[in-house]
Order: sequence, then structure tokens, then C-alpha cells
Amino acid sequence: MALTKREEDFSAWYNELTEQAQLAQNSAVRGCMVIRPYGYAIWENMQKTLDAMFKATGHQNAYFPLFIPKSFFSKEAKHVDGFAKEAAVVTHYRLRNDGKGGIEVDPEAKLEEELIVRPTSETIIWNTYKDWIQSYRDLPLLINQWANVVRWEMRTRLFLRSAEFLWQEGHTAHATAGEAQEETKKMWHVYQDFFKNFLAISGVSGEKSENERFAGADNTYTIECMMQDGKALQACTSHYLGQSFAKAFDVKFVNKENQSEYVYATSWGASTRMMGGLIMSHSDDKGLVLPPAMAPIHVVIVPIGKTDDDKDMVKTFIEKKIIPQIQQVNFTIESEFLGKVQIPLQVKVDRDDQKSMGWKYTQYELQGVPLRIGVGPRDVAGGAVELTRRDTGAKDSVMIVDLHKHIERLVPEMQSGLLAKNEAMRIEKTVTLDNYEELKKALDEGKFVMAHWDGTVATEELIKEETKATIRCIPADAKDEKGVCIRTGKPSSKRVLFARAY
Amino acid sequence: MALTKREEDFSAWYNELTEQAQLAQNSAVRGCMVIRPYGYAIWENMQKTLDAMFKATGHQNAYFPLFIPKSFFSKEAKHVDGFAKEAAVVTHYRLRNDGKGGIEVDPEAKLEEELIVRPTSETIIWNTYKDWIQSYRDLPLLINQWANVVRWEMRTRLFLRSAEFLWQEGHTAHATAGEAQEETKKMWHVYQDFFKNFLAISGVSGEKSENERFAGADNTYTIECMMQDGKALQACTSHYLGQSFAKAFDVKFVNKENQSEYVYATSWGASTRMMGGLIMSHSDDKGLVLPPAMAPIHVVIVPIGKTDDDKDMVKTFIEKKIIPQIQQVNFTIESEFLGKVQIPLQVKVDRDDQKSMGWKYTQYELQGVPLRIGVGPRDVAGGAVELTRRDTGAKDSVMIVDLHKHIERLVPEMQSGLLAKNEAMRIEKTVTLDNYEELKKALDEGKFVMAHWDGTVATEELIKEETKATIRCIPADAKDEKGVCIRTGKPSSKRVLFARAY
Repeated sequence: MALTKREEDFSAWYNELTEQAQLAQNSAVRGCMVIRPYGYAIWENMQKTLDAMFKATGHQNAYFPLFIPKSFFSKEAKHVDGFAKEAAVVTHYRLRNDGKGGIEVDPEAKLEEELIVRPTSETIIWNTYKDWIQSYRDLPLLINQWANVVRWEMRTRLFLRSAEFLWQEGHTAHATAGEAQEETKKMWHVYQDFFKNFLAISGVSGEKSENERFAGADNTYTIECMMQDGKALQACTSHYLGQSFAKAFDVKFVNKENQSEYVYATSWGASTRMMGGLIMSHSDDKGLVLPPAMAPIHVVIVPIGKTDDDKDMVKTFIEKKIIPQIQQVNFTIESEFLGKVQIPLQVKVDRDDQKSMGWKYTQYELQGVPLRIGVGPRDVAGGAVELTRRDTGAKDSVMIVDLHKHIERLVPEMQSGLLAKNEAMRIEKTVTLDNYEELKKALDEGKFVMAHWDGTVATEELIKEETKATIRCIPADAKDEKGVCIRTGKPSSKRVLFARAY
Repeated sequence: MALTKREEDFSAWYNELTEQAQLAQNSAVRGCMVIRPYGYAIWENMQKTLDAMFKATGHQNAYFPLFIPKSFFSKEAKHVDGFAKEAAVVTHYRLRNDGKGGIEVDPEAKLEEELIVRPTSETIIWNTYKDWIQSYRDLPLLINQWANVVRWEMRTRLFLRSAEFLWQEGHTAHATAGEAQEETKKMWHVYQDFFKNFLAISGVSGEKSENERFAGADNTYTIECMMQDGKALQACTSHYLGQSFAKAFDVKFVNKENQSEYVYATSWGASTRMMGGLIMSHSDDKGLVLPPAMAPIHVVIVPIGKTDDDKDMVKTFIEKKIIPQIQQVNFTIESEFLGKVQIPLQVKVDRDDQKSMGWKYTQYELQGVPLRIGVGPRDVAGGAVELTRRDTGAKDSVMIVDLHKHIERLVPEMQSGLLAKNEAMRIEKTVTLDNYEELKKALDEGKFVMAHWDGTVATEELIKEETKATIRCIPADAKDEKGVCIRTGKPSSKRVLFARAY
């Protein structure tokens, strides 16, 4: 079934695409999604790349409990305010027969202290770090965890906002504020590298205003990506936590001067939300468009033939002539943190005889396979195949002897082309304004707005109430510029980024 | 602190080793463990290898919800009996301030239907498969999930039995019973390959008796590994589920004859329990012994020197002469399902100047690093280093020009040597008996016993009550042999494996 067009209803388009391309679907449990194999394969590519970056920057993985004792939450005041309203609570540990053929919760098996399903793991991790850290020699402690977390959101959407989601959360401990701040920024740069070079997304990197910070953080750094409807998606965050968690969990160390001091903390995370961001950044009315670096399948080959003889001939040709060619291709990505990354091209030959060519072409467009090769008996005879790129739809008849050269050129071209297109869109749809009515209008038109703000929480909340837009970040590259707040007229020294957001 | 000796107290030895080698530790949440970075790195090696095997056999990963509606559990009668008694239950979705500076569960936020934290995912997955399967063309459906699961065990031990653990669970759907049975056995063979060639564990492969089957399975296949105390550890299982879950969740397909039929199912899983099995299979009184295929670090180099000049000279020698040599080494493992697997050697140079050589040597023995190289100024002068293998403790002075040859020989020798040693232990400590008193005595001595059994659940339970041993499996290689049950004297056609188990 054809997708709703983006222009008609962006939200419907997103939902239909996500389900029809078999990326994810809603489950029987309210707000919890099923990530389907094709969607999960993209997530595995994200994981593999980020994990390599974390390891390249000296981090190790570990695993901490799913459950957090309720009392841990009360220890950091801002933190509990941020998460208590959406906590899934385990109260019992046993079921029993209800005597009517069903089962019920056994009231005898009530926990003394309720357990919270982790919405994030600062508390349980810092409670553990207390055992691990005694001296400056134990620092820095650079740990990451890949895990599922639960936040009981009332309005959920596949990938973007779900009760359960998958993510990674880094939690590091340092001897000085400076070192911890440096780590916070380093991991933010890791995410920037990942977004730019792998996801082909050109986001706005900046710091969060106080109001939008993580619950318990002194500073929060973000990358705000523009979706095709002009709304912002916060794709990852890196937090400098100061000593707040060390104080809450009494984590001290003996420094080089032999004095006892609280440890400095960071945390940083990125989640399956990035899947939603990836979909809404590049895709079109035909379906998913994927940067090759994230594609589970790079090239799909569709054999075409009516008779069994034709089919056999085409399939032999594919095995002997085409696949060996594609396997010669090297796809390399330059990454700041990983150096040159070689991505082996994944090829699929669609041998299904039940489905029509038209159905298959539509399906691979829907699933965003970057390159499609159609091969029929005439192609075999002529020594040429039809090569179609997903991003532009451009078709080319390519001599078989040159196939690998074309693929070698097209794959990186598609990767960098998507980034360029994404960046161009963001620049085009970002406006610098000084008039409040114009700001409202621009937001309605799906734009990012750079505007002056007086720096107060009150004004930020007023603007949010009146426009449904929030300060997404104070961009890292914003220049010092004297001006007046777009809402209050009070003095301002910098423009900040306003947008409506997911 | 030196470990308790295995002979003195095997259980204390295991606990101390697991904590001191920094593999895992207990957390603030009863029964939930923290997997520390070094332990997690071994788990990542397990994951990586198994995941490649699953993909090589045509499986894809996906992700299903953490929570399962309570009503799903009642749908398969045996299944609910097996898991209801250890289910963690989410009843509320919000906390609130208690007015006394703490937080409490908000009674207004009670779920209509309680959610069970998954102990295993058959029910939620088969409820989803209902949407995915209509026709024989949708089959087979070959899916695996890496996830955390929760079973509220009352007596927990690190890795072996914990309330939360990590695992993979495969869930496949097939058009015929034969195909599903073939899949069940294939994945059992995958595990056999993994245990033998990567974990260097020679387990007993066999089928479970009815009493010991998975709750809801028609057949369960297992690998039972002998720990060094002679107790058995069930390391993985593969289940043929027949049509029970398809019937419970009404999953039908239209077969080639255009008839509607229930789908046939399998499931198979292996967990962080394997970590416990790995520890108790190979390790000794000095600490962990790891097969090189699972070692996070293969070679540790310890520079030795008193003066700063000495240290600099030694470190330069290591960088320029030793590391390039080690990087030439190829470590290859032959796997039935993966072919030749190349494992790049991981090298660590311990540059810590604070710790003594003795402390470091003890630490690396505790953590089971397969090879240790000590390098001092005299070694540099003489062009030789001291190379020590962890498994036997054998030390060799090795000419630096030959270092890579020695490593190239030693690494596979250690891998196969551990397997041979483990197999020899199992064979030595397995006895074939026909007398019930002798069986009890052998069990007390920590042995596996092959004995005749009359095939009834009643006798199995009687023997369990009297000896604390269970039928671990009906070994796949057990020969037909007429005999009489070791307890009842009734006729038997095969010997089965009795052992006490973890």
C-alpha cells in the first residue's frame, strides 16, 4: 500500500513507513515496541559503530541491574523530580493460581522495598562506584552500558517515544572537574562524528539551557537534528554532572595531595530514538532512504526471467559475474575517532519466484536498499545491467565489466550526498529573526529560528507556552552578538535555537 | 588475598575468584548482579561468537518487549506452572512525593492488568508471530533476541543463578514438525560447536527426561558440563515446542495444500550462566584460566626496571621489538558452523609504575591472561624474554627473534590443551554403575553416573529425593543396552546420566 505523502501528513507517513518497511511495530504492551529484524539490523549497525568509538576512546562495557531500589531515587533531588512521574514499579515477586483457571499476583509475595525499572542508571551505578573508587589511581573510570530502560510515557510513538527503549549510557568518574568536563565534550564530539560521518545527519551541536538539562546535570550538551517537517529531534546528550551523584552516594577518593574529595561525574547516552531520527532525516514518499554506512543490505540483485531456462541463466550470471565484482568494492568512511572504517558491502540476491518484479522493486524502495540491480536475459546477452540508486532514483545501464567501478563511485557519493542534502535543508530552513510574530510564523512553517533570549527560565517557559517551541540549544558556533530578547526586549548576548521538537 | 583452595571449599573458591578477578559482584538489589568490565568483555566474546553462528545458520536478531501481560501467561498451562512462582510483577507506573521528603508508589497509578518482567519470551513472541505468519511462504521464521530476563530465584549465586541475567533466546516457526525438530537439533549442534571449539568444554550432549524439560516443550536437548567439583551445569538448551504455543496464541498458516494448520515452534537459549560454567571448568587455585578464544587479553607484557632509564629502555624495546612480533601471530579456530575463525591477539602492556611486579603477576594469574611476558634490562641486553603460560605455569626464556613462533605454537596448544584436560576429567570422573548404594557413594565423591532407569517420572523423583541427583540427560551417544533400573529393578533399555547439578 502506497505511503501517505509527507506533505499531506508527515506523522501518518512516518508511522506507515516504520510499519511497512518492517522496522518496528506496536506490541500488546502499551507503549512497548517490537523492533523487527530489518529495523534491528540497522540498530546493530549503529551499536557496532558507536561501540567501536567508545572503545577507541578508552571505555569499557559493563552491566548493572535492571532494578533500582526506590530509596535510591530520593537521594538526588532533581533526579527524582525528573523521573518519578514515569517510573514502572515492581511491587511483587510471585504469581499464584486464582482458583478460577487464571493467575493473580500473590499478595504474600510483596517486596519490602519496591523496585523501579531503570529509567536511567546513575543511581545504581554511583552506588556501585562507591565500592570501586578509593584513590586517584582508580580514576578515571570510563564505563558504558548497553541496556533497555523504561519511562512510562503517556503518548508514545515507535522509536521516538516508547515506554521501553534500547540505549547506551556512559557513566564516567574523574578526579577533577576539568577532566570530567573534557570527557563530557569528548563524548559529545564522538556523537558528532557518528551523526555526520555515519548517519549522514548534520545536526546543530550546542549546550542545553538550564531548563532543558538532564535531571541532575550541571551542563548538558546535545545534537539537535532537523527532521523533514522542520521539527527538532534531540538525538543524544552528554552531561557534566559535577559532584551531585558523588555526594548523593558518598563517593569520595583520596587525591594526590592525600585529601579526601568527592568524585566528578559525566553521563552520556543515545538510544533507539536515533532510528526515528534517521528515518525522518532522509526518507521520501517511496519509503526509507538509508546512508550506506547504516544499510543492512547495500545492493539487492533482482533476477528477471519468464522461463525456467532464462531464470537459471540469469542466476548463474549473477553468481559468476556480478557478485565477484561487487565483492571487490571497498567502501571506506573517514571517522575522526575510528580513522578509516572499511565497510564490507552486503549483497542480497532475491531468488523468490512467487513475487512480481514490480512488487519487489517497490519493497526494496520501501526498505531503502541503496542500490538495486535488475538482471534479465537481455542483460546477460548484452553484458550490461540496470543499476538504480535509491536516493535519487537515477537508473543507469552499466556494462558488466565496469559494474564495480560504478558501485565504488556511487556508494560514497550516496553517503556524502545524503549528508549534503540534509545540511542544505537545515540551512535553508533555519532563519534568524528579531520579531516575535515572525518567530511564531516561522515555527508554523516548520523552521528552526535563531533568536535572542534574555537568559531567564521564566521567559523560556513563556515562549514555550505561547509558541510550543523550546530552546533546543545554545549552538556551539553561535557568535557573541549584542541584541535584545525576542519576547521581553531585555538584553541578550547570544542567539539561541528555537524549534518545536519531538 | 589468596583464594580458598578448591579442595577445601569449592563454593568459597568460586565466589572469591569471581569477585577478586573482577568478573562480577552482588548489587544493592537482592539477587541482581553487576557484571564488571573484565567479566563483561568475556561475555562479549561469547556473544560475538554465538551471534556469528546464529547468523551463519540464517537467523536474524529482533527485540521484543521486556514486559508481558499477566493474561498471556495463563494461555499455556505448563508454561505458567514453570514460571509463575518466580515472576517479578509491575503493578504501578508512577511514584509521588510522600510528603516526608521521600517518595512512594502513587496508588492512583495502578495498572489495569499487571505486567510480568519477562522470564522468557515465548508468550509475547508468539503473540507477535500471529501477525507475521499467514502462509507457508512466511516460514521458516528464524529469530533470535539478546536480552535480559528476570526469574525471582530465592537462592542466588553470581552468574549461576541470579534474579536478572543476560541471555539470547531463539524463537523459530516452521511449517512442519520435522523441520522444527531439525532446527532444534541444529541449534543444539551450534552450541556443541561453541562449547567445544571456543569454550574448550567437553560436555555431555543429550535429551532431557520429561521431568526436566522446559515448561511447554515436547523435547529439550541440553549440554551438561562437568564442573571441577563433579557437579553438572546445564549450559544451554534447545527445545522442540510442537504446536503448543501456536495453539495457545492461535498462530495458523495456510500450507502448500491450501489448508490452515498450526505452526510448529522451537526455542533455544544460552545465558550468562555460561560464565559460571567457564570459570568452574578450567580455573585453578591461583584464579581464572581462560581458553584463548574467550580471553579479553591474550598477552600481557610487564616491564621490569628500577631506574627511570631502565624503564624507558625496556618500554622502547617492548614497543619496537615485541609488539610488532606479536601482531604477526594468527590465532585460528576451526568451527563447524563458522569455518576458520581468525582471532586477533589482544596485547596489554602494563605501564603502571605504582604496583610491584609480584602484585602484577598475581593479578594476571587471577584474571587468567593466557600468556605473560616479563621484560627487564637484562632481557633487553640478552635479546630474550621470559614467557609464562597461565594454564600450566611453565616458564621459558625465549629469544626475542623467535617470540612470535612460540606464541603461535602456544596459543592453539593452550586452547586445545584445555579442552583435552576438561574431557579427560569428565571421562575419569564418569562411572557406569548398577548398584544403588554405589551410585550414592559416587555422587558424594563428585562423579557423573551412567545408570539404568525405568523411564518413569516417579522413579526419577524418588532418586532425586534420596540422592539429590537428577537425570541430567539421556546422552545422545548412549547405546541401546538391556538392563534393569538401578532403583526399582524394572526393565530399562538405555543408561542415563545422573549427577548433582548447579
